[in-house]
Amino acid sequence: MRRVREMLKSNREKQLHRDIKQQLIVAGKVLVAEGQDDFTRGHISFRLPDNPDLFFMKAHSIGLDEITMQNILTIDLEGNVVAGAARRHSEVYIHSEILKARADVNCVIHTHPTYSVALSATGRTLKGYSQPGALFFESLGIYTDTINLIRSHAMGAGVARALGSNRAVLLKNHGVVVTGKTIEEAVVGTIMLENGAMVQLLAEAAGDPAPEFPRADLEKARHDISQPEQFKINFDYLARRVKRRGKQAANRVK
Amino acid sequence: MRRVREMLKSNREKQLHRDIKQQLIVAGKVLVAEGQDDFTRGHISFRLPDNPDLFFMKAHSIGLDEITMQNILTIDLEGNVVAGAARRHSEVYIHSEILKARADVNCVIHTHPTYSVALSATGRTLKGYSQPGALFFESLGIYTDTINLIRSHAMGAGVARALGSNRAVLLKNHGVVVTGKTIEEAVVGTIMLENGAMVQLLAEAAGDPAPEFPRADLEKARHDISQPEQFKINFDYLARRVKRRGKQAANRVK
Amino acid sequence: MRRVREMLKSNREKQLHRDIKQQLIVAGKVLVAEGQDDFTRGHISFRLPDNPDLFFMKAHSIGLDEITMQNILTIDLEGNVVAGAARRHSEVYIHSEILKARADVNCVIHTHPTYSVALSATGRTLKGYSQPGALFFESLGIYTDTINLIRSHAMGAGVARALGSNRAVLLKNHGVVVTGKTIEEAVVGTIMLENGAMVQLLAEAAGDPAPEFPRADLEKARHDISQPEQFKINFDYLARRVKRRGKQAANRVK
Amino acid sequence: MRRVREMLKSNREKQLHRDIKQQLIVAGKVLVAEGQDDFTRGHISFRLPDNPDLFFMKAHSIGLDEITMQNILTIDLEGNVVAGAARRHSEVYIHSEILKARADVNCVIHTHPTYSVALSATGRTLKGYSQPGALFFESLGIYTDTINLIRSHAMGAGVARALGSNRAVLLKNHGVVVTGKTIEEAVVGTIMLENGAMVQLLAEAAGDPAPEFPRADLEKARHDISQPEQFKINFDYLARRVKRRGKQAANRVK
Repeated sequence: MRRVREMLKSNREKQLHRDIKQQLIVAGKVLVAEGQDDFTRGHISFRLPDNPDLFFMKAHSIGLDEITMQNILTIDLEGNVVAGAARRHSEVYIHSEILKARADVNCVIHTHPTYSVALSATGRTLKGYSQPGALFFESLGIYTDTINLIRSHAMGAGVARALGSNRAVLLKNHGVVVTGKTIEEAVVGTIMLENGAMVQLLAEAAGDPAPEFPRADLEKARHDISQPEQFKINFDYLARRVKRRGKQAANRVK
Repeated sequence: MRRVREMLKSNREKQLHRDIKQQLIVAGKVLVAEGQDDFTRGHISFRLPDNPDLFFMKAHSIGLDEITMQNILTIDLEGNVVAGAARRHSEVYIHSEILKARADVNCVIHTHPTYSVALSATGRTLKGYSQPGALFFESLGIYTDTINLIRSHAMGAGVARALGSNRAVLLKNHGVVVTGKTIEEAVVGTIMLENGAMVQLLAEAAGDPAPEFPRADLEKARHDISQPEQFKINFDYLARRVKRRGKQAANRVK
Repeated sequence: MRRVREMLKSNREKQLHRDIKQQLIVAGKVLVAEGQDDFTRGHISFRLPDNPDLFFMKAHSIGLDEITMQNILTIDLEGNVVAGAARRHSEVYIHSEILKARADVNCVIHTHPTYSVALSATGRTLKGYSQPGALFFESLGIYTDTINLIRSHAMGAGVARALGSNRAVLLKNHGVVVTGKTIEEAVVGTIMLENGAMVQLLAEAAGDPAPEFPRADLEKARHDISQPEQFKINFDYLARRVKRRGKQAANRVK
Repeated sequence: MRRVREMLKSNREKQLHRDIKQQLIVAGKVLVAEGQDDFTRGHISFRLPDNPDLFFMKAHSIGLDEITMQNILTIDLEGNVVAGAARRHSEVYIHSEILKARADVNCVIHTHPTYSVALSATGRTLKGYSQPGALFFESLGIYTDTINLIRSHAMGAGVARALGSNRAVLLKNHGVVVTGKTIEEAVVGTIMLENGAMVQLLAEAAGDPAPEFPRADLEKARHDISQPEQFKINFDYLARRVKRRGKQAANRVK
């Protein structure tokens, strides 16, 4: 009886893991389709629901749009690979230290989108000049220790501290780290951060922008825009777009 | 005899409704092709010619390029769904209140295009730095009540007041609402507003722009550019481009 | 004998006209592929080598990428259509008046590219901040009479005066008019003007640009970049790109 | 015995040369796919490993994406064509003089990317506002002799002097020259330079950027980002993207 239950549990877990990996594959393709690619220099991770001390992570040496069921690594909160044969990103500590520090976070994305990097270089934070900007109202940390790659436990812990309880953190002159309870939330957040940064840089370049709306107004916008259901709806739309294109390509190459 | 007339009338109406829905489908694809997409967060509506207290509207949870004959809702001027099974956008009141206040308007579009949002954040209006800018000369309201989603009758009425008798209204730090007698007019207007905003932000970022042309000159340009026939010609061109691409895609996936 | 000679001459002319029309078709597709489209609001014309008082011109109501052998109009220097059934652009006078005033010009292009329009709005001319900028060194007029469409002989003559002996003229807050001895020269010039404008607006937005090179240096660059052979080589490359894409599309839709 | 050895050596050389030419073909397509095209006005060269006084170079009159096994020229360090029938770029001296002056450099790329040209026009160097910017920290020369084409030994030598021991050199108001030990390094460097320039121009346009990180931090970033292995991994990813597209196109045209 116990063995049967364990076997069933194991099958359910395997299916769960396959589903998550499948969603990471789609997430990577969505991020590239939305302009978040930078050679092979971006990553995404997701915590295992049935084992919160482990996470799946995109491998080194491939693009975000080249994730497969085979090259996803399983990594522990010290950054050690516990399953998978592919190479690990040296910046794994961004993921392990945030997942260690933030029990409420399951997904971590790190990319280098142009407008967000430029915003980080201004030394200013994201303002509420757009609804995507409002999503990050008083919820965007800034990490200013170094421009370098986050290649140690200590540096990863520094990023986690700069993140604090925020949704995301700008790595000054380097890139962004965006978190989510879900893959959908982190992906949509990453895309919205870049759009908010673009709106702000355009408005600031054109002269002194008008004042932001009052705090209470921005807090309400942040609340309304960050509904889990809405992240899913928006992600699913982008996923459908990617699949439509993929389908066309698949038929073309036959 | 009367029943026959009614049946014929009913058939004509059905065909009319099908034609309008078909044009909304094309309009949505044109808007996405021209960069007006923002996840599923944009909408378009059109008043029923044979029943001016009702309007068709894109449903929630889909992209502007995913409108179908099946998912278009029929909604009354209080925002109640009277036909259709899909989910209604919570911002329906933008449409219902404008269509209530403006008998001359049949089509309402709401999107969040990047340059227009950035322009709204500067606190300045669109200037006549381009012919698309001239289209909105003294015909662009600004709604400054809130950055939040327009989710009540009162807020929708506020947007309608800020619109006034203008062609469009900037929702500060949020997006645009563009109107038209026809779908073509609203779609072309939305695209031109974004181009006019881009020209202006570029010119302002590069230094003090030269003075605009005199009022009479801008008024004549606004008049000449806003000819109904020209909106149709320009929309039809974009529709042909979308159909050419769709045809290629359709043949690819066979 | 004379009739045979005339027939042969007529055959040669027909072939010449077909070749020119074919090149206008390609030129229109190249302009759209390079981002010079603006709905149906752009045009291109070319003077008949065997009858310099007539010119071929793209018709109204179509995009630059929709020119066909059938819809090209033949027009005289007063702007009257002498052959062809399609509708004439109301701005025909840009073409007729320039071709009247400038015997050295055979091709005229009018478009509304975003960066060039923004440059025109700054009230400054194009500087030698790039080699494309140098192509227009002291060879770019500015027409500042109106933002309106050029819909009369008098207005067209005004544009021709503002053009003077220059390569091109900015229509302030409206668009560009670029000329060439050949179609290739005008097309490449139009694309280079936009690139030069983009470089300048970016450099100016980022702060005070460094001084330009001395006049003699810019004059030499202008001379070297404006070699007829080079215009042809660059145009032919863009034409090959368009044809490669067209070939793929044609095969897809079979 | 000796003849056999020579024949084997010759076969190995032929294969080596074919492999290099094949990589130049891919490099050209990658550069165009990443936006480095400017008509036919860009070039790439690579030094023969078995004969360091000779180099392969893209021919005149074609785009960077039109390099074939047949049109690659073999050129000596004086700029003379020693093999190949295609036309030589008049700016060959950029390549010959740099390869003469820098024994550590094997690949030279010259293009005119918009943001890099705009940066050159500001008269400022690239700052460490991004990791791509850090790649060029204190390793970017500026050539300010002329805006003109580099069409003589003397001018090429001037560019080589302005390059010095740096990774790349901005040709003021003209373009960029980027070097590498390998094709991968030069291609990735060219793309990163443009991204770094874009980040900087955006940050500067939006107001006074925050200070850069200290010298030691930037030196470490420059070191870590410039690992040969990483250039290869990033280039290979872009090459796979180009091949995926090419495969789709090839199947479409069958």
